[in-house]
Amino acid sequence: MYRSARELQRFSADLSKLCAAQRSITARNIRSAPGLLHSPLRMASSESFRIEKDTFGELRVPSDKYYGAQTVRSTMNFKIGGVTERMPIQVIKAFGILKKAAAEVNKDYGLDPKIADAIMRAADEVADGKLDDHFPLVVWQTGSGTQTNMNVNEVISNRAIEMLGGTLGSKDPVHPNDHVNKSQSSNDTFPTAMHIAAAKEVHEVLLPGLQTLHDALAAKALQFNDIIKIGRTHTQDAVPLSLGQEFGGYVQQVKYSIARVKAAMPRVYELAAGGTAVGTGLNTRIGFAEKVADKVSALTGLPFVTAPNKFEALAAHDALVELSGALNTVAVSMMKIANDIRFLGSGPRSGLGELVLPENEPGSSIMPGKVNPTQCEAMTMVAAQVIGNHVAVTVGGSNGHFELNVFKPMIIKNVLNSARLLGDASVSFTNNCVVGIEANTERINKLMNESLMLVTALNPHIGYDKAATIAKTAHKEGSTLKATAVKLGFLTEEQFDQWVRPQDMLGPK
Amino acid sequence: MYRSARELQRFSADLSKLCAAQRSITARNIRSAPGLLHSPLRMASSESFRIEKDTFGELRVPSDKYYGAQTVRSTMNFKIGGVTERMPIQVIKAFGILKKAAAEVNKDYGLDPKIADAIMRAADEVADGKLDDHFPLVVWQTGSGTQTNMNVNEVISNRAIEMLGGTLGSKDPVHPNDHVNKSQSSNDTFPTAMHIAAAKEVHEVLLPGLQTLHDALAAKALQFNDIIKIGRTHTQDAVPLSLGQEFGGYVQQVKYSIARVKAAMPRVYELAAGGTAVGTGLNTRIGFAEKVADKVSALTGLPFVTAPNKFEALAAHDALVELSGALNTVAVSMMKIANDIRFLGSGPRSGLGELVLPENEPGSSIMPGKVNPTQCEAMTMVAAQVIGNHVAVTVGGSNGHFELNVFKPMIIKNVLNSARLLGDASVSFTNNCVVGIEANTERINKLMNESLMLVTALNPHIGYDKAATIAKTAHKEGSTLKATAVKLGFLTEEQFDQWVRPQDMLGPK
Amino acid sequence: MYRSARELQRFSADLSKLCAAQRSITARNIRSAPGLLHSPLRMASSESFRIEKDTFGELRVPSDKYYGAQTVRSTMNFKIGGVTERMPIQVIKAFGILKKAAAEVNKDYGLDPKIADAIMRAADEVADGKLDDHFPLVVWQTGSGTQTNMNVNEVISNRAIEMLGGTLGSKDPVHPNDHVNKSQSSNDTFPTAMHIAAAKEVHEVLLPGLQTLHDALAAKALQFNDIIKIGRTHTQDAVPLSLGQEFGGYVQQVKYSIARVKAAMPRVYELAAGGTAVGTGLNTRIGFAEKVADKVSALTGLPFVTAPNKFEALAAHDALVELSGALNTVAVSMMKIANDIRFLGSGPRSGLGELVLPENEPGSSIMPGKVNPTQCEAMTMVAAQVIGNHVAVTVGGSNGHFELNVFKPMIIKNVLNSARLLGDASVSFTNNCVVGIEANTERINKLMNESLMLVTALNPHIGYDKAATIAKTAHKEGSTLKATAVKLGFLTEEQFDQWVRPQDMLGPK
Amino acid sequence: MYRSARELQRFSADLSKLCAAQRSITARNIRSAPGLLHSPLRMASSESFRIEKDTFGELRVPSDKYYGAQTVRSTMNFKIGGVTERMPIQVIKAFGILKKAAAEVNKDYGLDPKIADAIMRAADEVADGKLDDHFPLVVWQTGSGTQTNMNVNEVISNRAIEMLGGTLGSKDPVHPNDHVNKSQSSNDTFPTAMHIAAAKEVHEVLLPGLQTLHDALAAKALQFNDIIKIGRTHTQDAVPLSLGQEFGGYVQQVKYSIARVKAAMPRVYELAAGGTAVGTGLNTRIGFAEKVADKVSALTGLPFVTAPNKFEALAAHDALVELSGALNTVAVSMMKIANDIRFLGSGPRSGLGELVLPENEPGSSIMPGKVNPTQCEAMTMVAAQVIGNHVAVTVGGSNGHFELNVFKPMIIKNVLNSARLLGDASVSFTNNCVVGIEANTERINKLMNESLMLVTALNPHIGYDKAATIAKTAHKEGSTLKATAVKLGFLTEEQFDQWVRPQDMLGPK
Repeated sequence: MYRSARELQRFSADLSKLCAAQRSITARNIRSAPGLLHSPLRMASSESFRIEKDTFGELRVPSDKYYGAQTVRSTMNFKIGGVTERMPIQVIKAFGILKKAAAEVNKDYGLDPKIADAIMRAADEVADGKLDDHFPLVVWQTGSGTQTNMNVNEVISNRAIEMLGGTLGSKDPVHPNDHVNKSQSSNDTFPTAMHIAAAKEVHEVLLPGLQTLHDALAAKALQFNDIIKIGRTHTQDAVPLSLGQEFGGYVQQVKYSIARVKAAMPRVYELAAGGTAVGTGLNTRIGFAEKVADKVSALTGLPFVTAPNKFEALAAHDALVELSGALNTVAVSMMKIANDIRFLGSGPRSGLGELVLPENEPGSSIMPGKVNPTQCEAMTMVAAQVIGNHVAVTVGGSNGHFELNVFKPMIIKNVLNSARLLGDASVSFTNNCVVGIEANTERINKLMNESLMLVTALNPHIGYDKAATIAKTAHKEGSTLKATAVKLGFLTEEQFDQWVRPQDMLGPK
Repeated sequence: MYRSARELQRFSADLSKLCAAQRSITARNIRSAPGLLHSPLRMASSESFRIEKDTFGELRVPSDKYYGAQTVRSTMNFKIGGVTERMPIQVIKAFGILKKAAAEVNKDYGLDPKIADAIMRAADEVADGKLDDHFPLVVWQTGSGTQTNMNVNEVISNRAIEMLGGTLGSKDPVHPNDHVNKSQSSNDTFPTAMHIAAAKEVHEVLLPGLQTLHDALAAKALQFNDIIKIGRTHTQDAVPLSLGQEFGGYVQQVKYSIARVKAAMPRVYELAAGGTAVGTGLNTRIGFAEKVADKVSALTGLPFVTAPNKFEALAAHDALVELSGALNTVAVSMMKIANDIRFLGSGPRSGLGELVLPENEPGSSIMPGKVNPTQCEAMTMVAAQVIGNHVAVTVGGSNGHFELNVFKPMIIKNVLNSARLLGDASVSFTNNCVVGIEANTERINKLMNESLMLVTALNPHIGYDKAATIAKTAHKEGSTLKATAVKLGFLTEEQFDQWVRPQDMLGPK
Repeated sequence: MYRSARELQRFSADLSKLCAAQRSITARNIRSAPGLLHSPLRMASSESFRIEKDTFGELRVPSDKYYGAQTVRSTMNFKIGGVTERMPIQVIKAFGILKKAAAEVNKDYGLDPKIADAIMRAADEVADGKLDDHFPLVVWQTGSGTQTNMNVNEVISNRAIEMLGGTLGSKDPVHPNDHVNKSQSSNDTFPTAMHIAAAKEVHEVLLPGLQTLHDALAAKALQFNDIIKIGRTHTQDAVPLSLGQEFGGYVQQVKYSIARVKAAMPRVYELAAGGTAVGTGLNTRIGFAEKVADKVSALTGLPFVTAPNKFEALAAHDALVELSGALNTVAVSMMKIANDIRFLGSGPRSGLGELVLPENEPGSSIMPGKVNPTQCEAMTMVAAQVIGNHVAVTVGGSNGHFELNVFKPMIIKNVLNSARLLGDASVSFTNNCVVGIEANTERINKLMNESLMLVTALNPHIGYDKAATIAKTAHKEGSTLKATAVKLGFLTEEQFDQWVRPQDMLGPK
Repeated sequence: MYRSARELQRFSADLSKLCAAQRSITARNIRSAPGLLHSPLRMASSESFRIEKDTFGELRVPSDKYYGAQTVRSTMNFKIGGVTERMPIQVIKAFGILKKAAAEVNKDYGLDPKIADAIMRAADEVADGKLDDHFPLVVWQTGSGTQTNMNVNEVISNRAIEMLGGTLGSKDPVHPNDHVNKSQSSNDTFPTAMHIAAAKEVHEVLLPGLQTLHDALAAKALQFNDIIKIGRTHTQDAVPLSLGQEFGGYVQQVKYSIARVKAAMPRVYELAAGGTAVGTGLNTRIGFAEKVADKVSALTGLPFVTAPNKFEALAAHDALVELSGALNTVAVSMMKIANDIRFLGSGPRSGLGELVLPENEPGSSIMPGKVNPTQCEAMTMVAAQVIGNHVAVTVGGSNGHFELNVFKPMIIKNVLNSARLLGDASVSFTNNCVVGIEANTERINKLMNESLMLVTALNPHIGYDKAATIAKTAHKEGSTLKATAVKLGFLTEEQFDQWVRPQDMLGPK
């Protein structure tokens, strides 16, 4: 199912407020409003502010927003790329899960239950996507994701304060650092959110998508099992196989795609939480890390554990480089499959024409009646993107220094993008292409029967050199294999019919 | 200046309508509305439709949208990635410019002036970003961008029909294919829009951004001209240079970055328009291609020309691969500069500490008082992304077949993303970091004076081997060069003072 | 241990022959000898030929070489890159193993034992590297590796003929196609040899190399366990950890490197042999594939099995793309570790200076006494190469068509190169750097005690905001934390001493 | 012409010596000889040593080698990758040119003419490839290439000493550092040699190769000018073009490939020489840098100049990243062209079959008579390698620190490899494929006449929608366009014949 609903939720909360305001907004007056550059919808109330402060001083914060000074400061300092470059909402939701888990554990260790419970309820709202509009920051910020962690801390703090009847921005009774971020650092929470978000996207989008594609291809392999066709190696005519066997190769690729992604997950399930600033776990309690991982596991239903070595978990993102490598391999498989299908479906009259692909839309704005393998094109474009994303992740992963890798937001953006694109494209490709593929058996039969490569069946009987002479002669003379073979005196017509049988060439004997 | 205003415009047009409607919308009923999945804001009027048709049949189109059946069909067929994956708005605006130019030329060649003029006015609105909300398609569609071309054709057609008092969806008196797309194909218009969009982004965002950075670094190089400091090679202590010289190297890198981008532009200025379906220019008139390029050049102020070979211009995107290669080189330069600055500014007490970087925000959610080189981090993340984008462009560029490369939307998305991120990040890095950098002269002097590598100045006087002995001995004994040199009997104190003068080591003699 | 011995063997066989000949050779007359361009040493006998033929006609073959017409033809048709671009010798040796296994199985299925045994003996010589000089072909040939398969078939055939007293080039009694290649195709043998070669290189070079590095780092982590030092995040001062903990992060990275490589191996252990031309197994016997895999497993001691789907095994090289992805992740880890070590060892006086790296060679041809982290540099260069190799493998893997991927030689060249470079560099880095690393405890202590980030320990006692004020004030005033804290009235001197204890900041409480 | 002659020269010098020795060498005793691991041929004299020393101590050097202690030390410290990973010989030769130029300039500045002249003569021998066997070091060494610079200094020093009647290893009268390396550092000489080597390879191998390919394709475009064929977009049937037009697109790609490479050269012509250790030019004389660049220019005939900013020239390799980006774009073009040609030549009976490619070798070891597009395969493998090499160069280029990039040997290895592979492959592809391509006009005509896309010619006459109906109906009914058009009543037979004329569809009207 499609997921654009989350963007809907992100904006819809603002609608009634907007309607009440009924005021005209121009681009000009928005640009001049500090800290309000990213989110047009909240501009309606842009003249209403409260004052918040961080260690750097005071800042005006829109009165209808839960975030605070550090978030506003980040929107002022990082005007890079605009709204399409925002921190992926999956990371925000993962933070919601983490902050809830941490609050629960902190309560066990003595945090005032009233505060802890309010944090948990606010965190739930973040995890459920109810507060998406309060996270305006872009990916291109501090490389540790500190500002997004603070954005989350501020939103949860203020929302919890609101729940408890306090004043937004007062940091009382729920302080963003001392309570929401208790026993935590950006340096361990952001990588934890990265892993939670990646694991969820893999499980909710990518793996189901791949399974959908796998099943559809497997059904086609079965359906096409008895259709014998010419094989092609080096793009040239080769010995026959069944169309089912050909699709069976694709099925295997997707089956292994799933296996590869799953094989990368154990290290993604390891959470950095509890490592705090440099991996030592300073300012946490013994057991905190393990308990948080347990809570996150319970909240997500995924087998998260605490990372056995927090230093590695902060300073490196090898686990996500590894996952990205698996996605890269999946992309390679998808490129192969989609390429094959578009070539096998090429035509309608001047291509290979063995497959008939579904017609989904008009193909050309100038050539009437043209139908194009558009799903294959979307899939191969996605594959190219994933291959590129992987290099970005690799470069980021390799450039960590000392106790902290500071390419975190870029890395997770690319991993999530790759997982989602592959998952979505798999479903689109399946529903709009694979399930509707039909074999053009007439053309398949014609091509196979004309093929010179059936001569290979003669190798065991007359040897490679004579067989080669038959094929070359037939090609040169535009004749059939049988006629040429008999004419050359290498065998009788009966022998040919007995030895050259495509249906007997599909496996060992 | 920041560009989020365009996203604002994209949504703001819907506001009054929404307010009038005042209806509650749930995610559920939106998901079930065909053709309405991408744009939550227009959901308010989702129950109001008109019927449009394409060669595949009829479809319901939201009555407040200018797009038509083919656009709706694409939203149904390509549910990949969501709103953040929409066709970059720069491509849409470039299409506006192109469609205006084409209509003007078509008028010269006999298109009904009433129709042509209406197309031109509607195209202007597209180019000016007034209709951004009518372009819901994602990048992951047909690889030729056909559906975005048709989206543009439909919007301009319907908007022109509206201007002329006709009925939306009637294709009368302005037909999307026969009039708006006249003498055009997706295959030549989309690559034309790609080149227009890329050239404009380069000129409006990237080059100004790089120039801003260049000038700020050049000012710093001048400011730091007389500060002599230790050089570092292999990350190890080396002979001295001035801090101005060190920054001068960065200035040269940015100067060449600008030169490299400019060097790639001549082939980007070549437009495919006039090639139509396969490059032959079928269904165009002699001179059409040249005239369109002239008009586009006049409209943009950039030196666009018609591509000398349309076959190459459709089938390959080498020009954008080349541009992406230039951006990749810029990214490499940026990575070097930002890396150096963060290391030179590392500390405050346990790093190299030669530079004092501006403090822009609280650095840590757990370590109070920490200030981080966050602008360097944003820049290096951008660099990694651009390097990855380049690989995606390369893979897409290499996989064209026959008369058409079908990785077009993916290629332009990445090129535009790279250009914008580098341009924006250059400005952010300049304003929030470079201009505020100060030299910590106290520390710089201390480090330089302690350095053992000043011994290099003795090579011409006592030879390499003796100089090496001095340095090694001083290092081993924790002593100074002078004391060691004299103790070893290689020279006198006076000679040392005369020969080893950092200020004399900054250039040839 | 170093492996250059194999190159030695490659040339040494020619020496006695050369000496007997005692003739002067000029570059001129060698260039004019067809089919003799690659191997200078065998030129001595270049005027002595025999005539061999393939289906394309006759060719002169050097009389002292076992290869035949198809090999000579390939040297004439693919003059790309020269001797450094030859097919990796590991592939040739893997072919020796495979051909032996196939002959043994063919004997079981009825191949004349005399022929089979001769093939097996000749194949053994190939596997043992005794005939390395007879494989002159470069990587840049047919994309299926057909010519290398034929090179192997020709060499084994002729060597077996020689053993049986026949005439070289007669194809009697051992025919290269009908006997040596029996039940095989290039299309299944080359990928089989790829997997055998990759698995052996991983087991013989890469994994031992990584284990060596792991153990050395683990020993250092233990040795450095009690040395408390300042942490660094964002390259800036942070809270303390022990040097042992820091090295423990590296240990974990290498441990996981080993795990990642191993996790990719199951699919590398799958062999394509038995698939023949397109994956159907045409011209093989039932059971052939399984038996061959068993034999290869027995010969190598590695758990090879027959690929469950031969279509996938010929048409795609996802398994090697996956392995390359694992190597890419290893490279990312190595880059991090080597980068850290060179920065921690930077100095001697103006860097971080916490580590003292072994001095292995003079560091500079102009700066006497300079010592550089050269092993780190070799390792990071290797890492960059592996990252690049991975992209080459990815591009090749994604471009297979239909029943055969034809980027096989390029793919295996890069995978083997990456495995070997990482393995060799790990050993070199270990022996020449890691084992000799010493901690500069004096400097480490000095830096840690001056650090402002120890203030973090105060968070639980006085809150984040007050702690931040202390750190910022101390930094501004160049004062110590303790003095500043007391002066600001946030705590007493006794409280400071009790709360701020580095040795208590290394873990949760 | 093929260049393996240089490897010949590398080994042939050892032959007479070997023959005289007549001693049996086993791998065992070679492995145990320190410093002798790389070059098996010189092992014959391995028991004969002289003692040399560097600042680290004494080492045994083979008495028949000109290199000295630092070279031997490097072979001991960097056992990574073996002989195929040696420093490219082009770099060594470039060093020969540079050292000659530097000696000449040093003589102008007062270096003893006897010494200078001897250095120049020895350097000439290095530049001419006469001493190739004396450069055993691998790429994976110090990242500044210091050890290769010292290898060159040692070889030239000893050879010059020999010429002057001195004792090898005595450093008298020609000292490797004080004389051969006078006014130089590895840090400026190695990048100078990188640029010289790259520029020469571009001019001697790459550009001639591309020009050869360009001319052959241009000749084919002319030859095929009048052959009208079906176009293909999205791999599907499209409107016609001439085969000459199709090849004209390839010609344009290669023409621009040449332009792109040339556009990158100006910054490659800039030489770092004169920058010495950190770019300041310490220990050089005013004018030294300019004079050296002039001499190098005179010696090579290429327009080298001194780099305007030596800091950039040492600390960054943006110029080579840029060149590599140009090579990457060339690779993308080559992938497109070679892919097209193999698909257009696919068959012989079941593919597109429009081109007949030359048959160069037997295509299959199991399928007799098969002919494969092997030159296309070599070319596309080369393209994939160059794309991968580019990423390695990019990663290396981005990771420089402070005054020196230390990925130099890796960067130049990859740039040279890319340039040579593309150049060689272009020639091989031209000679063994392009020049022999023939059009299968019978098949081309058949496919074109059956095509449904000729319907596009009707757009201007009956409109897009009706034209689409004709094409779709004809496709559905397996009928011709003309019959369908008439049957549908959209036009008369005469109108069809008049309007649908392929020869009129090749350009604008």
